[in-house]
Amino acid sequence: MGEVHLRVGDDERLARAAWSRISEPGDPQAGTTISVLGAVGALRWLESSARHPDRLPRRQQACVERWAPRLEGLEPERDLERFAKLGGRVIVPGDPEWPVGLADLGAAVPHALWVRGAHQLPGGENARSAVAIVGSRASTRYGEGVAREFGFGLAEEGFPVISGGAYGIDAAAHRGALAASGAGTIAVLAGGADRLYPAGNEEMLRRVIEEGAIVAELGPGSAPTRHRFLARNRLIAALGTVVVVVEAGHRSGALSTANHAVEIMRTIGAVPGPITSVASGGCHRLLREQKAVCVTSTQDILELVGPIGSVEEAPEPACAPGLLDGLEPLASQVFDALPARAGAEVTSLVRTSGLSATEVLHGLATLHTLGRVRRVGERWARVTS
Amino acid sequence: MGEVHLRVGDDERLARAAWSRISEPGDPQAGTTISVLGAVGALRWLESSARHPDRLPRRQQACVERWAPRLEGLEPERDLERFAKLGGRVIVPGDPEWPVGLADLGAAVPHALWVRGAHQLPGGENARSAVAIVGSRASTRYGEGVAREFGFGLAEEGFPVISGGAYGIDAAAHRGALAASGAGTIAVLAGGADRLYPAGNEEMLRRVIEEGAIVAELGPGSAPTRHRFLARNRLIAALGTVVVVVEAGHRSGALSTANHAVEIMRTIGAVPGPITSVASGGCHRLLREQKAVCVTSTQDILELVGPIGSVEEAPEPACAPGLLDGLEPLASQVFDALPARAGAEVTSLVRTSGLSATEVLHGLATLHTLGRVRRVGERWARVTS
Repeated sequence: MGEVHLRVGDDERLARAAWSRISEPGDPQAGTTISVLGAVGALRWLESSARHPDRLPRRQQACVERWAPRLEGLEPERDLERFAKLGGRVIVPGDPEWPVGLADLGAAVPHALWVRGAHQLPGGENARSAVAIVGSRASTRYGEGVAREFGFGLAEEGFPVISGGAYGIDAAAHRGALAASGAGTIAVLAGGADRLYPAGNEEMLRRVIEEGAIVAELGPGSAPTRHRFLARNRLIAALGTVVVVVEAGHRSGALSTANHAVEIMRTIGAVPGPITSVASGGCHRLLREQKAVCVTSTQDILELVGPIGSVEEAPEPACAPGLLDGLEPLASQVFDALPARAGAEVTSLVRTSGLSATEVLHGLATLHTLGRVRRVGERWARVTS
Repeated sequence: MGEVHLRVGDDERLARAAWSRISEPGDPQAGTTISVLGAVGALRWLESSARHPDRLPRRQQACVERWAPRLEGLEPERDLERFAKLGGRVIVPGDPEWPVGLADLGAAVPHALWVRGAHQLPGGENARSAVAIVGSRASTRYGEGVAREFGFGLAEEGFPVISGGAYGIDAAAHRGALAASGAGTIAVLAGGADRLYPAGNEEMLRRVIEEGAIVAELGPGSAPTRHRFLARNRLIAALGTVVVVVEAGHRSGALSTANHAVEIMRTIGAVPGPITSVASGGCHRLLREQKAVCVTSTQDILELVGPIGSVEEAPEPACAPGLLDGLEPLASQVFDALPARAGAEVTSLVRTSGLSATEVLHGLATLHTLGRVRRVGERWARVTS
């Protein structure tokens, strides 16, 4: 499998390739089982449990009933071989290229990523952070123009552009990035990475493979079902440092990506449009509900990516002097009061910083907008990735 | 001056009419002097000080040098008589019609309001709360259509529409309200209320007088200077419960109204538009800086006005059961923890409510969006007007 995979054993990679056929994307019980037993152990457990499912507790039984039928005909070695012949590689946790941001998905973390294209995945070692640009297939010329402009502008500034390879806004964002010089673009597909879906975008997706990468969590040959499209959206959200919704009707799938992004505390940008345009309705709702920041230019997005957007510029997760550069005094004081690795509640930050609760919250709001802190329940923590 | 003015003496009204010629709008030292000495006392002090300005401390000297030259030729009785012949009335603090919201302007409170038109001013006794709709003179058809639609929709729902009588968005908002049945519209002018400025809107402003009211803080005959336009904007902000910016370029005067509204903690709505339209640039900035809530319909605005938008529906400032109706549990708990009249800091609300600081802040954010609480410095208080 080449030099980049030295850290991970072949058994682990094979087991994960198998799991990417066994469970549906985002199945939290599969994620939990693998995190407890390891991919190899979980596979052995499944194989033995499948022989005597009636001896299991009811909840495990349900999982085995879901997963065991797919053990039949599994040939992960052949999958890997064939995929390598297509020029692809399979990335698993522990590989240097594995995107750190995927950990935010918790039990819904993908088992493996099937990647085609030389471009390094965002969030891996030595990779720059990336921006996801998403939106409706039912887009307008206005939205497509904006997506193309942002895709181009971000790629020119060196930020890879992530999207879903679909018609409409997705395609416009990829095309904009392809027209720029160099940063690349990444299409996250809902089916297998051997299928360039939708067919109308096949030529564009071939260019994405040449100049960027396409990514799938399902094994080759897998069909892109409706459920898989929705599950795929969580990967787009997790791979981006910032998620920008360009156009989305009130029921657009792009809103599912935005909601995944909210859950895992990504910064979300929404592009406004005429209030008379239904294609902007979802964006306006995100703005109104204050789930998203209003973005009107590439520059606006770059500000959301923040000063530690690029890995090269922020090598230290601890409170190195550079981390506080460019923050206003209040935000800087609050950041300083946050523990280097753990989270802290507001009341504790009030004590540590000597600021009032209002000041602490204002500081946290600024830091959150800059992507410097994340909230998990009642606690706030530094963003170190 | 008729029965509605029983509470205020003629001397006070005359002195305030005089002051509305003596100091420029928003002069905080005039406001402070009058609040300390009363309008009559402040006038006497000015008259005597004008004779010996050299005996005064330097800061008072500067005021007297500003104000004394305008004592000459003052004829407040004649002003009032002439204005009454035009069908106008002069409203001063203590009159039932005096808008309570003006108190939020502090020392920049107007000395008197010169009103033409039978419509009761918003914020006075028995008056419904009103919505200000403002925007650029350099508007687009899109913006004008939106302003007209919102003006009409709000007036149909019974909410008077406040604006500045100018070309563009202002005129469209007034016209929309005039087309509706009944709630009226109020134009706040930068010059004297006898001058229907700008001339191109004269006919519309006559209709505003017939079906609503026009308001000025300067005496009749006063010219609308640039400074007075900017000062006028604070009145529009203070008279509205909610201020909606429909279109505003990056240097539009409508942004000065929005900034006044931020200072006195009004809820601000901003209408999004195409990011390619410079006329929407100021609105997008307000959204991006989270100074404004995204509004796309009359319904969105009504939600911002909130359940206690109308005076009739919320007669009690104390914690009557009705006040908590329709609030989510967290917001309701926080509202409950707020003292009936005074303000409280977050730390104190944490103790009183038994909620965490994060929960308190979330509750306050909801209440603030609903127009139920206001922040003054570090303290939060119920909105009782």
